[in-house]
Amino acid sequence: MEGEPTLRLRIFNLNCWAIRYLSKRRQQRVRLIGDTLRQEGFDLVLLQEVWSEQDYSELKVKLAGCYPFSHYFRSGVIGSGLCVFSRFPILDTLLYQYSLNGYPYMLQHGDWFCGKSVGLVVMKISGIIFNVYVTHLHAEYCRDKDAYLPHRLVQAWELAQFIRNKVEEHWAGPSHSSWVPGRAGKDSHPCPHRHTSKAADVVLLGGDLNMHPEDVGIRLLRGWTGLQDAFAEAMHFEGCKNGCTLVPDNCFTDKSELLPFPLGIRIDYILYKAISSFTVKCEELKTTTGRAPGMDIPFSDHEAVMATLHIQRQGQPAGATLGTADPALADVVTEARTEVGAGLRAARRQRYSSGRMAVLALLLLLLQAAAALATLAGLGAEQPFPKLSFCLLAFLALGVLVLATGLHLFHTMEVKMLHGTEDQMWMVLRALQERPSEG
Amino acid sequence: MEGEPTLRLRIFNLNCWAIRYLSKRRQQRVRLIGDTLRQEGFDLVLLQEVWSEQDYSELKVKLAGCYPFSHYFRSGVIGSGLCVFSRFPILDTLLYQYSLNGYPYMLQHGDWFCGKSVGLVVMKISGIIFNVYVTHLHAEYCRDKDAYLPHRLVQAWELAQFIRNKVEEHWAGPSHSSWVPGRAGKDSHPCPHRHTSKAADVVLLGGDLNMHPEDVGIRLLRGWTGLQDAFAEAMHFEGCKNGCTLVPDNCFTDKSELLPFPLGIRIDYILYKAISSFTVKCEELKTTTGRAPGMDIPFSDHEAVMATLHIQRQGQPAGATLGTADPALADVVTEARTEVGAGLRAARRQRYSSGRMAVLALLLLLLQAAAALATLAGLGAEQPFPKLSFCLLAFLALGVLVLATGLHLFHTMEVKMLHGTEDQMWMVLRALQERPSEG
Repeated sequence: MEGEPTLRLRIFNLNCWAIRYLSKRRQQRVRLIGDTLRQEGFDLVLLQEVWSEQDYSELKVKLAGCYPFSHYFRSGVIGSGLCVFSRFPILDTLLYQYSLNGYPYMLQHGDWFCGKSVGLVVMKISGIIFNVYVTHLHAEYCRDKDAYLPHRLVQAWELAQFIRNKVEEHWAGPSHSSWVPGRAGKDSHPCPHRHTSKAADVVLLGGDLNMHPEDVGIRLLRGWTGLQDAFAEAMHFEGCKNGCTLVPDNCFTDKSELLPFPLGIRIDYILYKAISSFTVKCEELKTTTGRAPGMDIPFSDHEAVMATLHIQRQGQPAGATLGTADPALADVVTEARTEVGAGLRAARRQRYSSGRMAVLALLLLLLQAAAALATLAGLGAEQPFPKLSFCLLAFLALGVLVLATGLHLFHTMEVKMLHGTEDQMWMVLRALQERPSEG
Repeated sequence: MEGEPTLRLRIFNLNCWAIRYLSKRRQQRVRLIGDTLRQEGFDLVLLQEVWSEQDYSELKVKLAGCYPFSHYFRSGVIGSGLCVFSRFPILDTLLYQYSLNGYPYMLQHGDWFCGKSVGLVVMKISGIIFNVYVTHLHAEYCRDKDAYLPHRLVQAWELAQFIRNKVEEHWAGPSHSSWVPGRAGKDSHPCPHRHTSKAADVVLLGGDLNMHPEDVGIRLLRGWTGLQDAFAEAMHFEGCKNGCTLVPDNCFTDKSELLPFPLGIRIDYILYKAISSFTVKCEELKTTTGRAPGMDIPFSDHEAVMATLHIQRQGQPAGATLGTADPALADVVTEARTEVGAGLRAARRQRYSSGRMAVLALLLLLLQAAAALATLAGLGAEQPFPKLSFCLLAFLALGVLVLATGLHLFHTMEVKMLHGTEDQMWMVLRALQERPSEG
């Protein structure tokens, strides 16, 4: 390969399912993952659900020789679970925590406590700047009646905006110059590569997106960022049928969840995009197939996704990867906006009912206070209620007041964020619709 | 000005102090702000503390003629309070909510409920791409014993990282190429402007940073991003002495807070930076001086900051504005890291004591449950406590348990974020220290 002007990059992505005390055979699997990573010598390893910093530290020690650079993203109560190991120096990192991520009172789901985020690491490999994103979106607990769909869509949207805004190639193009009622000054940029202005040369995204390939969130993310799916683009594929990453063959998967999908589902992805005068090709994509290679247990309840990418310089800037060129994008954004709107209405209803509950509890408390004062002042001939019931009722009302107020505040924030996302999507739709007439 | 290859941009920045029911003469002042903005015809207006969306809507209607483009950033329970009005189209927006922002139980301060954030709007004016940031950091309630300093430093750091990561000019430079143990491929980029790769041409930041010019947070932000201070750079200045924006002459300021600073303090800023082959100069900076021009009341308890910037293309990429060239930067990062470390230790103590309190409350509850069961089972000859006190105690324990658990979770998140920031700063320090030997 030496001497050829092509960079070959091997990437490993895995949701490790390493929840302390809960995940089965966690320590054994983390050791196994570490051993395999050391043997295989990937260039870049993107892991999710490494919830325990101790697991990360053990991996770090074990992998120090072949992956001297690494980063663990901390967030939420438990931690983001995201980490990166790399053969190449990590130059900078940034964590963006999604503004919506389930509900704190859904303890059995627990997503809220993880502070789901997207982590960015910036790397420079052979002079090429990579923006590498690792993320894990809110889980889907019930596909038929997915209460978290609006939250996951907000996350997919924020992820896309976060990636796009780091790139902004779209807005750097010449298509908008006619918009501007230039106050003064002339457009006379000296550089012919103006429309390739960018921060990164190549964008990579790996993670558990908790969305099937045809789901609106994936279409939104891909359409709005122009990211390509390594599975769809791979010249050679080896692994579970359809690239599935949650498969019935895996002994840790919940078989009842996979009943409607006998082959399994694909929710873990490696996506990529070349920004400027580069091309990225996926030479090979592999997944594990229900167990770790040569072992009797799998790495995790998810399958690992392994991609071999070829990154090559080319003379002409690649303009074809712009996601926004897709005429169907407006439809996807509209579809996503409809779902976010439905979530907004639900959140408003919850905000209203929690607020009403708080007001009722407050009224009850005030009534009791008045009754107690009246008794103390000797207005009532005798106490109308037994003391114990009276006190119990007051404490109950107080408890309801505190909880309902907390819920009201939470749903107010939820409404704000859903509303904000709906607005942003509307702005984008307007821009997309205005575009053709300006060509 | 027409015909000259210079863009002249007039920017208005103000913390509006528009808290419903609390801020004095709010409606009158918001009307006044709207009238002035319409009369003066700035190019770009950055506002903070517009807490009520209704105020924003009224301003939007009033300003539709001269500022046809605007955006309100929603976040937190109350809202970020941030909004932007512009003569030029807003192409894209992104909100980054700071990971730490005070404490929800500090109701009298209330910062937590605002979801303090930085808003980004992307604009293209005369072919020049602007990344415009508007923000408002956590307030300083007691300068001598500033409990919020670590949080404000985390915010300043995240703000700097957010701005930097949108730019990444730093990492795009040639200084790092020797770091990379290039696996394959050669560095043979065809574009001579390689080291100016970027997403924006010009970065603008306006807002109430709640830091004095010499504070470590400002030095960190400016040093790490290379942003220049419009006040320090202005060729012509007119306004309050030293550019102060909280002054005793303003009838709404709290005079006791300003006792140690008889001239006032400067906490509202307009900062800027040219990224690529552009130069930005501040022709003029003005502040209001305790009252709105020609009126008997001020716009707000803060003074407005108004800058006139000249943006000019130049043949040579400007490399001199790189903040990271400053050799004192490592000292500033070290200083900030020390403060964050102190905050981390305090957060760990609070996490520990709230956790201990929760455990004690749980133990008391269990003890009571055991006693109640024993009584029910007839083990005790008679009930040892009066029923009422027993119930009151149980409710008290339950209340303490819920509150202490909530606090424990909150401080766990705080520890995570402070720890993460400390880590990031350490990574940057290491990179800064390695730099000179690699030149």
